[in-house]
Amino acid sequence: MTIIGATSLMSSKIELATMKISAVRVTPIAIKDPALLNAAGVHEPFGLRSIIEVVGANGMVGLGETYGDAPVLDLLTRVKDSLVGLSAFDLNGLLGMVIAESKLTKTAHIEMELAPGSMGDNLTSSVFSGFEVAFLDLQARTLGIPLVELLGGAVRNKVAYSAYLFYKWDASVDPEYAPDPYGEAVNPAQIVAQAKKMIEQYGFESIKLKAGVFPPDEEADAIKALKAAFPNHQLRIDPNGNWSIPTSIRIAKRLANDLEYYEDPTPGLEGMSEVYKATGLLQATNMVVTSWDHLKRSVELNSVQIVLSDHHYWGGLRATQALARTCQAFGMGLSMHSNSHLGISLMAMTHLAASVHHLTYACDTHYPWQSDEILVGGKVPIVGGCVHLTDKPGLGVELDQAKLADLHQAFLTCRIRTRNDVTQMQKFRPDWSTVKPRF
Amino acid sequence: MTIIGATSLMSSKIELATMKISAVRVTPIAIKDPALLNAAGVHEPFGLRSIIEVVGANGMVGLGETYGDAPVLDLLTRVKDSLVGLSAFDLNGLLGMVIAESKLTKTAHIEMELAPGSMGDNLTSSVFSGFEVAFLDLQARTLGIPLVELLGGAVRNKVAYSAYLFYKWDASVDPEYAPDPYGEAVNPAQIVAQAKKMIEQYGFESIKLKAGVFPPDEEADAIKALKAAFPNHQLRIDPNGNWSIPTSIRIAKRLANDLEYYEDPTPGLEGMSEVYKATGLLQATNMVVTSWDHLKRSVELNSVQIVLSDHHYWGGLRATQALARTCQAFGMGLSMHSNSHLGISLMAMTHLAASVHHLTYACDTHYPWQSDEILVGGKVPIVGGCVHLTDKPGLGVELDQAKLADLHQAFLTCRIRTRNDVTQMQKFRPDWSTVKPRF
Repeated sequence: MTIIGATSLMSSKIELATMKISAVRVTPIAIKDPALLNAAGVHEPFGLRSIIEVVGANGMVGLGETYGDAPVLDLLTRVKDSLVGLSAFDLNGLLGMVIAESKLTKTAHIEMELAPGSMGDNLTSSVFSGFEVAFLDLQARTLGIPLVELLGGAVRNKVAYSAYLFYKWDASVDPEYAPDPYGEAVNPAQIVAQAKKMIEQYGFESIKLKAGVFPPDEEADAIKALKAAFPNHQLRIDPNGNWSIPTSIRIAKRLANDLEYYEDPTPGLEGMSEVYKATGLLQATNMVVTSWDHLKRSVELNSVQIVLSDHHYWGGLRATQALARTCQAFGMGLSMHSNSHLGISLMAMTHLAASVHHLTYACDTHYPWQSDEILVGGKVPIVGGCVHLTDKPGLGVELDQAKLADLHQAFLTCRIRTRNDVTQMQKFRPDWSTVKPRF
Repeated sequence: MTIIGATSLMSSKIELATMKISAVRVTPIAIKDPALLNAAGVHEPFGLRSIIEVVGANGMVGLGETYGDAPVLDLLTRVKDSLVGLSAFDLNGLLGMVIAESKLTKTAHIEMELAPGSMGDNLTSSVFSGFEVAFLDLQARTLGIPLVELLGGAVRNKVAYSAYLFYKWDASVDPEYAPDPYGEAVNPAQIVAQAKKMIEQYGFESIKLKAGVFPPDEEADAIKALKAAFPNHQLRIDPNGNWSIPTSIRIAKRLANDLEYYEDPTPGLEGMSEVYKATGLLQATNMVVTSWDHLKRSVELNSVQIVLSDHHYWGGLRATQALARTCQAFGMGLSMHSNSHLGISLMAMTHLAASVHHLTYACDTHYPWQSDEILVGGKVPIVGGCVHLTDKPGLGVELDQAKLADLHQAFLTCRIRTRNDVTQMQKFRPDWSTVKPRF
């Protein structure tokens, strides 16, 4: 007699014990970065990331990625061993441990401009989100399902990203920079050339220009040139709060018919509110509303109409789903911010974005600027401007341990421990200061 | 050679196919209800619920419970067969199907006062949440873990509920009512006796009085009597929006030092805002902020300081977790509302509440008023005012098919198809009208 029912029942149950975490590895890496210019200064020749491997008792490994700056790396390292024995489902337990450890010892560190991995306010979220993604990845791999299923399932099977343009120097400016295919971009014509190259390769349908670098009218000229070259693309400009209120209002009037949205023209919730009142141009932010604590005041002032979410800031994937519901309830749009990152973060962003009904714009990503990767098969493909979900389990990517070891070696030999675009700029311009807004 | 690693790896994976839904059953039931009085009228002798069984290809069954009123039952029934073949993880797919079906045919129905199962605005949420709980229960049973683990894990192992007091008639008022152990309660002394009986049995540490029935000063007298009898208990009063603004302000002044919060004294966001401005007494609601659409205006007006969440209203368990984050961000407290319900809804509320950091008050439940139950072993125990989580898989309760059949038979023979406390009251008081606020 064959008891088919009982057999299939047993094979369909996983053992709880297999979801216990047996080891956690945190590996800091340094990835080559071009000389990208921004309001703070210039990117250093290496960006720092932490790669997280959470090993289940079943031998499977969940992957996570977050900032590699010293404060984040320190807290990741202090927390990781205490996670052994926790269930991969216990995200609230994980959060409790991260918060408890963050209160035990305050890491002495200086906050660096535009370096989220150095920000005290972001610290627990930066650490939690790296682990949370790895916990969810381990859950999903164990279940044999894509991670997005744990977020309620995909409402879209591909996620659109935007072409993220930067003013930049050619690598020849300093021997520490690795050569990159894009070369110099310090004027509108070079920005248009950069856009053409990037769109030809990746197929993006939205374009974001990182601004706040050159005199504002020159940057507005670049938007006008992009509009002429790409009349059907959605355009955005992001001066990183480096413009005064009058400058922001003046440039908004020049670009009123050219922009999909205006990202962080000026500092502070009050300043953003004044600019919006004066211009009526939709404003997005990843600077003045970067955590749950900022939402109430922003709603009161109507400072921003679009939140650029980031699971590294907002407390992980599930929390960012909650943010999406909140934005919808308060009549705000939602898109997604990025910092320099590799494919694990890209796939976490993609699974998250695929699960969110209320995602109203193409997401940002620095990914085309990164030549390094730690994944089997190399870089995640971006096709037609989109990252496509697959039916592979978890995040759908595998770690290449040899490449991870190489980039860890690069971390060990590189002098950088916390991102500092300001001092990097001072190498080239000794009188560079951090005064804001500059224009 | 024994390949231990490979074996344990295989046994720890579930087959995706086993998570496909192979059948969905929706069973309407009628449960005995006492003659509880409220602002709309009086409870009918039966309350209606729908019991949902979602059967996985692995033979396991996930349980859900929601309203049994005609509009909800109709949509549940129209949707259920289209769920066959869906993955139990695909909550977004489920939501899409519920919304699509709800748009196909508008059920002709009349909205009844204080009958959420008859409300058009609640319809898709009432239906989705019943299925969502069953989907999550099926996921958790298949994984062999408590449902709370799928919500991020428990931050507390027991959930506190409040004693929910009602003015009521004795069952002898009409032969359709079944005898109940509480008898009549139409004055302060009888309300105190009801509280004593309920607290003795269940150990509640908070007390809520459903008001809006008798002249407001008599109801305030009942609160004063409860305060004298239970000086260490938290007290709440809920007139269901049946008091005018002046009445609400006047009674608030009488009860300012007696209440934990003031629930829905007067109708509308504007009215609630005026009462709060005049009294400064914290106000809770399950009437003026009952969905995501109401939050923005409430925040603008500061109408309520505490949201009484309800996963049947707010789009399910995951959505209610998001609501908790939103309330925290906007400085609002969170508790939980109930309607007449059985143990499946109680356990869904309990797993949800156990997962939410930002749960700031004991939850409401009508459960002590229900003598019927459909669970193996009978009613879920409430001890020390709390429902305790167990380590049983899923919701932790099993359906008793014989009891379900009995209560379905009760549904078939009872005349009620949509709750209507107004017409029930008119049986006893032919001149009863729906004018609001009454006092």
